[in-house]
Amino acid sequence: MKNSIYFDISKNELEAKKRLFDRVTKEREYIGYYDLPFQDTQNLKKLEKSLDASIDTVVVVGIGGSSLGTKAIYEFLKPANHLKRKLIFLESTDPLNLTNHIREIEFEKSHFLIISKSGTTIETISIFKYLYSLNNDAKKYTFITDPDSPLEDFAKSIDASYCNIPKNVGGRFSALSSVGLLPLLCAGINVDALLKGAKEIADGFFQEQLIKDHLIDKALFYAKNYTTYHINCIFAYSEALKYFCEWYVQLWGESLGKKQKSSAINVGLTPVGLIGPKDQHSFLQLLIEGTRDKSATFIKIDDFKDDLVIPDISLKHLEKLDDINGLKFHKLINMQCESTLEALQQHEDIPLDAITIQSIDEESMGKLIYYYELLTSLVGILIDVDTYDQPGVEKGKTILQNKIKKAQL
Amino acid sequence: MKNSIYFDISKNELEAKKRLFDRVTKEREYIGYYDLPFQDTQNLKKLEKSLDASIDTVVVVGIGGSSLGTKAIYEFLKPANHLKRKLIFLESTDPLNLTNHIREIEFEKSHFLIISKSGTTIETISIFKYLYSLNNDAKKYTFITDPDSPLEDFAKSIDASYCNIPKNVGGRFSALSSVGLLPLLCAGINVDALLKGAKEIADGFFQEQLIKDHLIDKALFYAKNYTTYHINCIFAYSEALKYFCEWYVQLWGESLGKKQKSSAINVGLTPVGLIGPKDQHSFLQLLIEGTRDKSATFIKIDDFKDDLVIPDISLKHLEKLDDINGLKFHKLINMQCESTLEALQQHEDIPLDAITIQSIDEESMGKLIYYYELLTSLVGILIDVDTYDQPGVEKGKTILQNKIKKAQL
Repeated sequence: MKNSIYFDISKNELEAKKRLFDRVTKEREYIGYYDLPFQDTQNLKKLEKSLDASIDTVVVVGIGGSSLGTKAIYEFLKPANHLKRKLIFLESTDPLNLTNHIREIEFEKSHFLIISKSGTTIETISIFKYLYSLNNDAKKYTFITDPDSPLEDFAKSIDASYCNIPKNVGGRFSALSSVGLLPLLCAGINVDALLKGAKEIADGFFQEQLIKDHLIDKALFYAKNYTTYHINCIFAYSEALKYFCEWYVQLWGESLGKKQKSSAINVGLTPVGLIGPKDQHSFLQLLIEGTRDKSATFIKIDDFKDDLVIPDISLKHLEKLDDINGLKFHKLINMQCESTLEALQQHEDIPLDAITIQSIDEESMGKLIYYYELLTSLVGILIDVDTYDQPGVEKGKTILQNKIKKAQL
Repeated sequence: MKNSIYFDISKNELEAKKRLFDRVTKEREYIGYYDLPFQDTQNLKKLEKSLDASIDTVVVVGIGGSSLGTKAIYEFLKPANHLKRKLIFLESTDPLNLTNHIREIEFEKSHFLIISKSGTTIETISIFKYLYSLNNDAKKYTFITDPDSPLEDFAKSIDASYCNIPKNVGGRFSALSSVGLLPLLCAGINVDALLKGAKEIADGFFQEQLIKDHLIDKALFYAKNYTTYHINCIFAYSEALKYFCEWYVQLWGESLGKKQKSSAINVGLTPVGLIGPKDQHSFLQLLIEGTRDKSATFIKIDDFKDDLVIPDISLKHLEKLDDINGLKFHKLINMQCESTLEALQQHEDIPLDAITIQSIDEESMGKLIYYYELLTSLVGILIDVDTYDQPGVEKGKTILQNKIKKAQL
């Protein structure tokens, strides 16, 4: 993984960098996600091994932090790999969506992971109740939840298997905890390689200082300029990174959109996820000619390990396009990435950087996830918010509970 | 379709409203999309009827404006309807994505629509060349392109069928032209009802003034406050509206992110598409507690025509959630929409409105599309941009062409 920064970081002071590093090191003592790359996964592997050989589909029932990370990793790896089992995600209360997904499921060959950190997520429990009404065999279900949550108690009461999420790991930072690892293990994904990638970034940052300066410089720039560049775009050149972008939107938006701790002023950085080349035909115009309130990070895959080629066919009246003949598609898509970046570089007031990941494999994704988690934590410290809570969404939940009570009277 | 506005529109002056209406009426004389609801579709219906009965899949090859509108309509209707044919969209140069999609295609039972307004879109022609190398039977292809484009000339040269996009209809405003209608007809979608819905909004606005004041008031508010509220979120409560959101992002971003005509200053309104309840667990925190730079439009579906119900099961230790028992999922999702809206309404500095569409049918979608196109045009006039061009993206294309030439030397 290589990150090239094209904005000016020379003005970042050493004192500020040191202080930030000290603060994030301190935060690591009580925030759990930092040490997930070093966890013991034996228990999760045992759980996966206990699944019957006939199970070919694992249904992940969870919403937000309970599904976005898993989906990001699974959908990234799926196009390039023959996976052991299929994952199906149930994450909406939309009845048509639910019905259509459930129609796909063969209960005989499926196992269900019910994931809720609090154990009382209304969407997840609603969907679980529906599934449970169709099949109430406790062996069909594994629950992933906080220690001592009502959902753990329920799992114990029906003698179903369960595993815990560490209390100090927040939902949107839980991709590399049991929340992500168990479903990914079920799909046959190499979670050791995933954690190895994350570990490399963690060690590079906290110990070897390989990436430390880099990440700290980037965070300082984003934080210093957040009132100007408060929209942060990821422009990723592969359809496989579509759900990574969705994961990023939650991580960035929900962590950094807050009242400031000291002032209670509303602050926030708005994430936008873009996929190239498709969004060259959609959002790019706004990025190039719109208000100068956006930064953009380009992500490309160095080696697609694919040789699909544009055939050497000349089409009458379209001879002007013969230059593409014989070009490999993976070369074309990376050239599209570079061309868009270069076009944007002609505007000095758009902060740009580029990340190149090695290939479509577990290690690359582990790195990318940990890198973005770390960046989020660093910016959160600098803009003075509590990166790990989400108090804003509670009000709507209370209103909903009252509405439901009223409707049932 | 019902739109309730919760921000203050009482300050909009009559003089400004009148002038805006005059200008959009004038624009209608030379911008083509306004009159698409009144077009004759006989030719397109004939084309669809000419497809062999054995064709069960239609592959849409197009990118940006050549696919987003079709996808928005198709994916909206698909979950609720048994459609005549399946559509597959090829819209990326990502080689793995392409390979996986093409693996799904049975050439024998498929017809291919190659859609490019200019006729020289590099992604579309690259993919077409690849398909053509696998099957060069001209009868397999229909081309949709501008009159006299190189792609039309090519179609004629191989004696393939083709149809045109009106020259004065821009790509992102072409959902209701041949670009959208032909693939939708192939899927068995009732395009007459789709156009009827659009016509109702057009007539209501231009003649009967039913919706005129409403839309004009909304546009005036967005335009007057665009330096403050320059991020405009759609929060749609149905998974079926996911691709509608993607269509909206292109329409809004590419139309309004421009240099101002009079000043050459960079201006723009940034679109964000959200799906509920999922994004209550992602973006909502930022909307509620982040910087006050966002407006939000809630979209819900009045009648899902579905009776899926949360079963009356009480789970031990989760009895607190028994209130949801017996609740229909479609009621739950709409209550979630209303609760989130009410929670946001407690903050006076977040401009909110809500659109309710009747049901998951063609007419409702036709209305919604035309409504948003009209709103975009109105705001474009007010913020003084050329709503219909996209000059910003040309530079990247030139850089790409040079890169490709160099690579082939």
